[in-house]
Amino acid sequence: MPSSTDRQPVIVLVRPQLGENIGKAARAMLNFGLTEMRLVAPRDGWPNPSAGPAAAGADQVLAGATVFGTLAEAVADCANVYATTVRKRGVTKPVLTPEEAAREVHTAPGRSAFVFGPERSGLETDDVALARAIITVPINPEFGSLNLAQAVILCAYEWSKGADLQQPTQEELLPPAPQDELEGLIGHFEALLEPKDYFFPAARAEATRRTLRNLLTKPGWNHLEVRTLRGVLSALERTGSRRG
Amino acid sequence: MPSSTDRQPVIVLVRPQLGENIGKAARAMLNFGLTEMRLVAPRDGWPNPSAGPAAAGADQVLAGATVFGTLAEAVADCANVYATTVRKRGVTKPVLTPEEAAREVHTAPGRSAFVFGPERSGLETDDVALARAIITVPINPEFGSLNLAQAVILCAYEWSKGADLQQPTQEELLPPAPQDELEGLIGHFEALLEPKDYFFPAARAEATRRTLRNLLTKPGWNHLEVRTLRGVLSALERTGSRRG
Repeated sequence: MPSSTDRQPVIVLVRPQLGENIGKAARAMLNFGLTEMRLVAPRDGWPNPSAGPAAAGADQVLAGATVFGTLAEAVADCANVYATTVRKRGVTKPVLTPEEAAREVHTAPGRSAFVFGPERSGLETDDVALARAIITVPINPEFGSLNLAQAVILCAYEWSKGADLQQPTQEELLPPAPQDELEGLIGHFEALLEPKDYFFPAARAEATRRTLRNLLTKPGWNHLEVRTLRGVLSALERTGSRRG
Repeated sequence: MPSSTDRQPVIVLVRPQLGENIGKAARAMLNFGLTEMRLVAPRDGWPNPSAGPAAAGADQVLAGATVFGTLAEAVADCANVYATTVRKRGVTKPVLTPEEAAREVHTAPGRSAFVFGPERSGLETDDVALARAIITVPINPEFGSLNLAQAVILCAYEWSKGADLQQPTQEELLPPAPQDELEGLIGHFEALLEPKDYFFPAARAEATRRTLRNLLTKPGWNHLEVRTLRGVLSALERTGSRRG
């Protein structure tokens, strides 16, 4: 989990309609390490029994969610309030991408809040007026159809890039095999191909060898892969089956 | 939307279960300007009446979706195949973030494909073996719960960031050979090795085939390089010198 929880933006859902969507938003948040949800006047009250199943295990987010009567109260302790909108509606505020906003959240002093409107209508002008800046996801101008949880997940995902989420169980890739092993492989190929007259005629032999070398050098095979290929070549040079 | 449709990755859904999720994936795609969907053996056949409503208007994506029997067929024309996985399972392939993969798609020569597995289980090892690289979304290690449409939207979103920037492609480098040429090469190796009992004993044959496939997929050999290697294999299968 991110060590700098104080750099976490609060996710504020304004007048959310369906409990299911609150649950999906919680799930989207926790995937990227966000845990603090605030609800402004949820239509069907709170808690909402439809939220839990949709959260797919992100129960800690729902359990910690707090409810406010107005957006102003919900963001009272936040220094940087970002209103998410599909498009800018004549509001003269800076418009940021999720990426730009996430970068600010990691560096700006004070708490930040990402504010999302109701499912159908989005934030009203008065809600947007509370915000210091607007987040708009750059989207296909001919087909803009982001739902609430999708908008949340894109913002959470961008924020997570600056947090310390580890790549899951990333084993180290083995380094390319040392040059002598590569030379051994190339030599093995050549030894097998020589008696088959692969390098004939002699005038083209040098170019053919170079082509083969380039081709076998390109992969950057590691020690195990080179050993496997040596096994392949050994199998090919056998005259018959090894089962005899 | 992006002028350079040839830089669009194909979105491949492998054995998707619910039509609803295919629809949601289409919606996620079109939000960020992706239009080409391919389906591998969808569980409930195709078309699927549940897909349309969930697509929320992204009908053009569903209407253009094509169905294939196997992943190999679905990506036969793709030079850069990326398998999305939640975590790496002992596969020695490069692991990229959606951001890194998107950057490659915009600059790498040849068509690209982002491959997504079934809802619950994700891609199988044999599917992943077809890919040149793996995309893993860096996620909360204590709560990883991305659904199919969310994984698609994050990849599409990252791709869309580079869509306006017409970056010069590296003309001088030949693209990796399309998947069907690579399959031809792998098949040629297997045909030569089979009579040598390379895949004996039978209990280990599958793992051995997968190792060989991974090893030959790694290099990203171009058309000419694959042709050269086919020549090498043809030389090796000759019984004697060709000068004879």
